[in-house]
Amino acid sequence: MSSNFDFRIKSLGECKIPSPMPFSNIKGDSIANFVNEDQYVLHSVTYGENRDKENIHEFALEMAGPREKIFFNPGHVHAGIVTCGGLCPGLNGVIRAIVRTLWQRYGVRRISGIRYGYVGFMPEEKLSPMPLDPDVVDDIHNMGGTILGSARGGSDVIKIVDALEQLNMNMLFTIGGDGTQRCALEVTEEIEKRGLKIAVVGIPKTVDNDLKFIDKSFGFDTAVSKAETAVHAAHVEAKSAMNGMGLVKVMGREAGFIAAHTTLATSDVNFCLIPEVPFELEGENGLLRQLEKRLERRDHAVILVAEGAGQELLKATGETDASGNKKLADIGVFLKDKITQHFKDIGWNASLKYIDPSYMIRASRANPNDSLYCARLGANAVHAAMAGKTGMLVSEWNNSFVNVPTQMAVHQKNQVDPESPLWRDVLEATQQPIVLKDDIKKK
Amino acid sequence: MSSNFDFRIKSLGECKIPSPMPFSNIKGDSIANFVNEDQYVLHSVTYGENRDKENIHEFALEMAGPREKIFFNPGHVHAGIVTCGGLCPGLNGVIRAIVRTLWQRYGVRRISGIRYGYVGFMPEEKLSPMPLDPDVVDDIHNMGGTILGSARGGSDVIKIVDALEQLNMNMLFTIGGDGTQRCALEVTEEIEKRGLKIAVVGIPKTVDNDLKFIDKSFGFDTAVSKAETAVHAAHVEAKSAMNGMGLVKVMGREAGFIAAHTTLATSDVNFCLIPEVPFELEGENGLLRQLEKRLERRDHAVILVAEGAGQELLKATGETDASGNKKLADIGVFLKDKITQHFKDIGWNASLKYIDPSYMIRASRANPNDSLYCARLGANAVHAAMAGKTGMLVSEWNNSFVNVPTQMAVHQKNQVDPESPLWRDVLEATQQPIVLKDDIKKK
Amino acid sequence: MSSNFDFRIKSLGECKIPSPMPFSNIKGDSIANFVNEDQYVLHSVTYGENRDKENIHEFALEMAGPREKIFFNPGHVHAGIVTCGGLCPGLNGVIRAIVRTLWQRYGVRRISGIRYGYVGFMPEEKLSPMPLDPDVVDDIHNMGGTILGSARGGSDVIKIVDALEQLNMNMLFTIGGDGTQRCALEVTEEIEKRGLKIAVVGIPKTVDNDLKFIDKSFGFDTAVSKAETAVHAAHVEAKSAMNGMGLVKVMGREAGFIAAHTTLATSDVNFCLIPEVPFELEGENGLLRQLEKRLERRDHAVILVAEGAGQELLKATGETDASGNKKLADIGVFLKDKITQHFKDIGWNASLKYIDPSYMIRASRANPNDSLYCARLGANAVHAAMAGKTGMLVSEWNNSFVNVPTQMAVHQKNQVDPESPLWRDVLEATQQPIVLKDDIKKK
Amino acid sequence: MSSNFDFRIKSLGECKIPSPMPFSNIKGDSIANFVNEDQYVLHSVTYGENRDKENIHEFALEMAGPREKIFFNPGHVHAGIVTCGGLCPGLNGVIRAIVRTLWQRYGVRRISGIRYGYVGFMPEEKLSPMPLDPDVVDDIHNMGGTILGSARGGSDVIKIVDALEQLNMNMLFTIGGDGTQRCALEVTEEIEKRGLKIAVVGIPKTVDNDLKFIDKSFGFDTAVSKAETAVHAAHVEAKSAMNGMGLVKVMGREAGFIAAHTTLATSDVNFCLIPEVPFELEGENGLLRQLEKRLERRDHAVILVAEGAGQELLKATGETDASGNKKLADIGVFLKDKITQHFKDIGWNASLKYIDPSYMIRASRANPNDSLYCARLGANAVHAAMAGKTGMLVSEWNNSFVNVPTQMAVHQKNQVDPESPLWRDVLEATQQPIVLKDDIKKK
Repeated sequence: MSSNFDFRIKSLGECKIPSPMPFSNIKGDSIANFVNEDQYVLHSVTYGENRDKENIHEFALEMAGPREKIFFNPGHVHAGIVTCGGLCPGLNGVIRAIVRTLWQRYGVRRISGIRYGYVGFMPEEKLSPMPLDPDVVDDIHNMGGTILGSARGGSDVIKIVDALEQLNMNMLFTIGGDGTQRCALEVTEEIEKRGLKIAVVGIPKTVDNDLKFIDKSFGFDTAVSKAETAVHAAHVEAKSAMNGMGLVKVMGREAGFIAAHTTLATSDVNFCLIPEVPFELEGENGLLRQLEKRLERRDHAVILVAEGAGQELLKATGETDASGNKKLADIGVFLKDKITQHFKDIGWNASLKYIDPSYMIRASRANPNDSLYCARLGANAVHAAMAGKTGMLVSEWNNSFVNVPTQMAVHQKNQVDPESPLWRDVLEATQQPIVLKDDIKKK
Repeated sequence: MSSNFDFRIKSLGECKIPSPMPFSNIKGDSIANFVNEDQYVLHSVTYGENRDKENIHEFALEMAGPREKIFFNPGHVHAGIVTCGGLCPGLNGVIRAIVRTLWQRYGVRRISGIRYGYVGFMPEEKLSPMPLDPDVVDDIHNMGGTILGSARGGSDVIKIVDALEQLNMNMLFTIGGDGTQRCALEVTEEIEKRGLKIAVVGIPKTVDNDLKFIDKSFGFDTAVSKAETAVHAAHVEAKSAMNGMGLVKVMGREAGFIAAHTTLATSDVNFCLIPEVPFELEGENGLLRQLEKRLERRDHAVILVAEGAGQELLKATGETDASGNKKLADIGVFLKDKITQHFKDIGWNASLKYIDPSYMIRASRANPNDSLYCARLGANAVHAAMAGKTGMLVSEWNNSFVNVPTQMAVHQKNQVDPESPLWRDVLEATQQPIVLKDDIKKK
Repeated sequence: MSSNFDFRIKSLGECKIPSPMPFSNIKGDSIANFVNEDQYVLHSVTYGENRDKENIHEFALEMAGPREKIFFNPGHVHAGIVTCGGLCPGLNGVIRAIVRTLWQRYGVRRISGIRYGYVGFMPEEKLSPMPLDPDVVDDIHNMGGTILGSARGGSDVIKIVDALEQLNMNMLFTIGGDGTQRCALEVTEEIEKRGLKIAVVGIPKTVDNDLKFIDKSFGFDTAVSKAETAVHAAHVEAKSAMNGMGLVKVMGREAGFIAAHTTLATSDVNFCLIPEVPFELEGENGLLRQLEKRLERRDHAVILVAEGAGQELLKATGETDASGNKKLADIGVFLKDKITQHFKDIGWNASLKYIDPSYMIRASRANPNDSLYCARLGANAVHAAMAGKTGMLVSEWNNSFVNVPTQMAVHQKNQVDPESPLWRDVLEATQQPIVLKDDIKKK
Repeated sequence: MSSNFDFRIKSLGECKIPSPMPFSNIKGDSIANFVNEDQYVLHSVTYGENRDKENIHEFALEMAGPREKIFFNPGHVHAGIVTCGGLCPGLNGVIRAIVRTLWQRYGVRRISGIRYGYVGFMPEEKLSPMPLDPDVVDDIHNMGGTILGSARGGSDVIKIVDALEQLNMNMLFTIGGDGTQRCALEVTEEIEKRGLKIAVVGIPKTVDNDLKFIDKSFGFDTAVSKAETAVHAAHVEAKSAMNGMGLVKVMGREAGFIAAHTTLATSDVNFCLIPEVPFELEGENGLLRQLEKRLERRDHAVILVAEGAGQELLKATGETDASGNKKLADIGVFLKDKITQHFKDIGWNASLKYIDPSYMIRASRANPNDSLYCARLGANAVHAAMAGKTGMLVSEWNNSFVNVPTQMAVHQKNQVDPESPLWRDVLEATQQPIVLKDDIKKK
């Protein structure tokens, strides 16, 4: 990242049409303001420790929000919305906000929901889009899931753009994870190649919170609250049994944010295992021996594991899947078996209860905090698209809503930094060894 | 604010004692890091619109967290904790985090809870401090309220410092609002005057979120979720009656953040009234006429009012309290009466249900998001005090934990800016007129 | 009640049409059974203490459920549903069950919802009925309130029967309290007078649980869970203040069931005040003196009062309403003022927090237990109506669903018997004096 | 069951000591009453259909509650409480009620909690009992699990009675399922053999609701509410996917009550599978073909299976466990695999999400309805024990609390009767075929 030019958003053309929104552009008149193109949010807000104070303002993100002039004539807009990949709390809230902002604030009257992700664009599936209006979406934010249906696959860029042309769509909102947004980027390029004026604006969806340039992804907060219930149950089971252990697996394929936040939210976790911090089972500092020590000291233990943690252990035991190493082996079941066997082997009267709440988390409705967030994300996505912005994602960064070039957001994953205050606080909360391994010396 | 020197934190002296925490000071060793004194968080992260990009880094806040060297010898510490003012979700979570961090991470063994706010320091009340340890606080975060009790008053600085001396306390954690922290600041000055080495570290408590230099105050998130339940009930009552109206009063004496966030979280509010945006009852753009229009259009309406809104109306009707204008008159009851009377006067068959959920909000337990926040606030307050910092508050700013000089935080209130994206999004969500008044022309 | 003949249900005529339901009439074939007309549920199940064992089986209620032969040809049915009076959790659940059972089990295709209670029948209101089918009611059980709207009034029997004739309705489901059902009874009589074949079946709605011949009314269970939240908040407020008191008012105009059950569910209540047990404020055994004692002993106190309790006190102070004594004066506000004043008078530093959660209780969605109950009540109401039964209510009695003649159910209120095990257990839970009065000697 | 003599409760001797409870024995004095020994609750309350009206009063259960005269001198009582087997919501509530009633109402001062079920009596385990008083149990009802710990095993009758003698206990409360109560019965017999005066009173614990003579077991209501959450998640997952299916496994080894009630509470279940109603996978009426039909019709399906359902299928495939047939094979995983494979085999693009919420259900805190129930069960258990009753269980039957001879309660299981109104209503709710099998003809 060498300059803030990287963060410039692609545009379909000049904005000439006055926005129908009743806002002002004058500071101090007590009337809510439009956002101007020269408003930015700094990317990095901390300095010290080798980071240069002078260069801190070089990187900045464009501020999201309604523009005084827009690109599209609302009467000519046909907008499409698509939800891709696994469920995440808040999907319906985002759909609802997009529909309501388009309809009620801009006066757009043609809005279509694409069924089952990009698959809904594939002509062979013969899936008609679902017409959307404020009545259809009125109460959907109180339900989990997505009324459009979701699926993986269907990312055939040519067919998608063909379909956009056939449907005469000039605006597409893609709600999905990095795969979805990467495909959306290719769609943008194909659109450009064909010389079309179609805005593609993404709303990043990742319950794992593993996308860059997002303070916290929508649904993440809800996921942590639901995970807390599972950890609480594991704690109760553990405390009620002799040498009782509770093991909970939560989502987090490549990033342990849900596990880390849940640990801090509950204070009941004794071992938090995440993909970013490898661990071992055997040895004096290994998980099994540390579990023994914990039981000796306190009679019970709670282990929280992110689904992507300890994959190196599973490989070691040969438990990879047939089709390669993409698919994660199940660390939860693996640990359940290993730990149970270990205590049987050493002759302890111990018991372990294993809880996998993943689907109950994914499918739950958004909590009020996420509802608010989804409402604002959806509205800001519409503001961007109406202004002809494309190839971008809408996001919250440093507590401001921003427009992020899709290319920037998907080129790298967001992960828990083991040297960060977040992980430090997790270590303090669990009092687990800094590394559950023998080869690294604890300080 | 003329320079970042204002943000420098007072210190009791040089830190010479090595921290017992097992962290490192080396970047890249995969071991969580201590925080250094040269780490800062920018105050302002947006630019454009008259704000100068070059000057943006001038103001910065000290990063909170454990230091490699500390000021106090843990064996000599006697720490006190006091909770003042009204209840707020998360009080027990902060108490718990302070106790656990002192005890388990630093090895401090003398921790006392002061009963019922500063009143507990007054010798005439004969209230013995409550001894605190990890067992006492083990489950308290699952309960609302504060195990120490809380009260207003007792802010006699001389008597407080006398009591600190008598109790031989060298560390005081003050959990309370701006009044509490202002008193704490005077206590700090009296301590300095007497040449004592007592660290005073505040944890800002304001369910209204009206303190400066805080992203979001603890308990605020929980308050919004609980307020959502009340608004939901009001919405159900309104929709189930002919010309049904639901009126909900929420906390917010000088700042309408709870009302604004709840409006965005629920999407059910049609009129959001806050202290920062005056409104009128009468006239074509006044609340009563706008309510009629809403009922004509949709048969029902939901009004959400912050307790500090519309105080000018109450004064206008002479309804001030005996002791001057400090105490707020009850805008909820006032509106209930005025609206009910209005529809009776114009002969409509309408009904209004009034809900005041304030105590149910205040007394609720923290939700997981707030629990996490309280845990981290408490821990960082301890890190600051152990490092001999004083006259400061711990806070989260731009997603980082920071140490803020108390003086900076209490000299001004945080309020909803009517020209901000937050209020703009509220106006979009409610579709209420930008100003419920006749004298200002809508754009 | 001299014989079980009183419990016989009125019928519109002989049932000749085979039910479309796939049940059997043979015991032992493992196929669910139809209910026969000779199946009864005993009214009274306890004996001893002057009650004669021999006579216990004299009184019995007809068992509800699908009959093998029905009266109405489903193709000719036009069914109406009306919800009257105040909100109660579960209204939508009952509506939904009626619609689904009529449509899916019997094949009825004309179902209309009457808007805003009996008012919807009044021609001058010009309120068109709402067409109902399984799609319309699909998700309504997840919302509080009633999609039909509710209101008091409109009980003009002649106009109602006129409207039924005009709408060509031959089946009416009345969901409401004793006033509603009394009106329904008169409607039945007018129908009979005109020689019409219209079945009128009531589903008793009383969140106070004050109707006879009902184990527990729908919504009651949900009301108790919600009241528990308010009592919990009051308890937290009380414990967190010096001489803190929490006062909660719950519904219960003539019966203290919600207060009694909430007391037993929470274990936090110290004084439970209900309409059936008069109390006094003054005197050694009066509430005020007993509160002092409680505070002396335990520093905090929680008082739970049913809205109809202590009305004799309000009369004594002249605080009746203008239009006579029908409308209850507000015992909650009265007690709040009296108690606060008392402790001011005797110079105690005490505080009282008052919570009135009534609308939040009424408007909440049914909990799973009530959802199940509403689903079964609605289904059984349809079975009765299809079999041509009329002038009756469907209810659960001794854990079986029964058909009760409306006349029996509305001639008397259900109240808490101060000598019953329920009230005895409340006294044990609160440890309050058996009578909060001076003139009765405690044992 | 040939006469009501079977229901007579064993007694340790004559009650001569006046109860300290302030109740009266006079009807009509407005003071709560003691219960007399001649008060009974009828066992059966329905008649018709071959059941003889005349004989209905033959079988009756003794009414529970405080007696005017008690057997034990409270000053000489040493009471023990033990919790056995798996967790169930409400365990702590029962413990709390026993302790509070003994201490506060009867003045008993020696109460001990036995650790980890009967195992805590085994001398080789060296587990000291936990002293219990009102302070210890003050808040425990707000937590799931059991503060005493629970375990299976340890049912060595001789050692248990030895331990009772050594501890000088004369009262034992056994909270557990039918195994626990059968052991308690043998303990009673051994006590009698040794000529000791030790009362053994059971509180039946079965989250499956499979014990006789109980309207609804404690924790059952909570279990249904929690199972509803899982079914709701399954429904959301199913609706959001192409040919989406949700499969939920709930508790119910020999009785499908949780599955049946959850089905009625949610209205989202399309196939409810319980142990009492065998089903097949293959064939035109088999589950797989019926699933296809459902998906063709509605695109999604939800299946709820009790853990004990379809065991005959598992045996057929040889999937029994090594140690015999006692342990249930996992029907949830079995169905997940079979259904997934089936749709792969027939080439459908379908997906199934499997949820097993069992531990999250078991470990949850009791809901208000269950809290109330546990409070009353515990109190009534104490009343029975203080009156010297033994070899009995306390229970609710036909809405009254009763004392049931243990022998009667454990000789047979309670199951869902496929011909009962309950199962009939389930069939109506799911619209599933009466039997998922080919060999039985549907009507």
